[in-house]
Amino acid sequence: MMQQRISVLTLGADDLPAMKKFYEESFGWKPVAENQDIIFYQMNGFLFSLGKRKALADFIGVPPEGSGFRSVTIGYNVATEAEVNTLYEQLKAKGVKILKPPTAPPFGGLFFYFEDIEGNILEVAYSTFIPLDKDGNALGHQPIDHL
Amino acid sequence: MMQQRISVLTLGADDLPAMKKFYEESFGWKPVAENQDIIFYQMNGFLFSLGKRKALADFIGVPPEGSGFRSVTIGYNVATEAEVNTLYEQLKAKGVKILKPPTAPPFGGLFFYFEDIEGNILEVAYSTFIPLDKDGNALGHQPIDHL
Repeated sequence: MMQQRISVLTLGADDLPAMKKFYEESFGWKPVAENQDIIFYQMNGFLFSLGKRKALADFIGVPPEGSGFRSVTIGYNVATEAEVNTLYEQLKAKGVKILKPPTAPPFGGLFFYFEDIEGNILEVAYSTFIPLDKDGNALGHQPIDHL
Repeated sequence: MMQQRISVLTLGADDLPAMKKFYEESFGWKPVAENQDIIFYQMNGFLFSLGKRKALADFIGVPPEGSGFRSVTIGYNVATEAEVNTLYEQLKAKGVKILKPPTAPPFGGLFFYFEDIEGNILEVAYSTFIPLDKDGNALGHQPIDHL
């Protein structure tokens, strides 16, 4: 049995210095440890890491090739619609590639999707279903079985 | 500027009931909210979600096709080598596809990689570089610039 937690979320990077620059300049993130092969960022209870894509695949023992939708999204929730719009304007001004501009779904809230420079998909959202604590941790989810 | 945190990590699922079964039966995880389209699990400070892959891609506005290495890994760290070996035996006994059996890297620790039933890559690791608090949160990372 495994606890409901993760420790490290790793993205493979074709161009590690460029991906480091993207995450640090677009988001303002600062690494907690790094070398020429891998960079770690302290997140809320886990580490986000960027590692060289081919080395990561070799380490695991899988072919490094891949294309198209990666079937993964990373969501960053905020407490208000205004914050969604502010981040949208800030990221757009930095040249970040927007996939879907701020959209209000029928069940409430506001979100937009964007990409990093190597095609990983991220989302900024205000969700009426997901409470955030004072530190921004997502704690629980309202029932959705009626939707 | 964005805080160093995420709120929701979403995996697209071609067969949502089968993926739900995999995560709940292999790991013992229990959902906090769900419907026929999406399932949420409370993690350490964020939510892990499984959503229908095609619907997720349509929602974002990207083509749903994708193949090969997704360039993402999800790591679950434990506090001892013995726990790595125990989880390896437990997951293998459940028929989980192992990509790399427990391996001790030159810089210490022990890890193995495996896949879920739709090719998302996960890792179980004991790392001498990543301290875990009493709840299993990953807090910081030892310097690696000498490696």
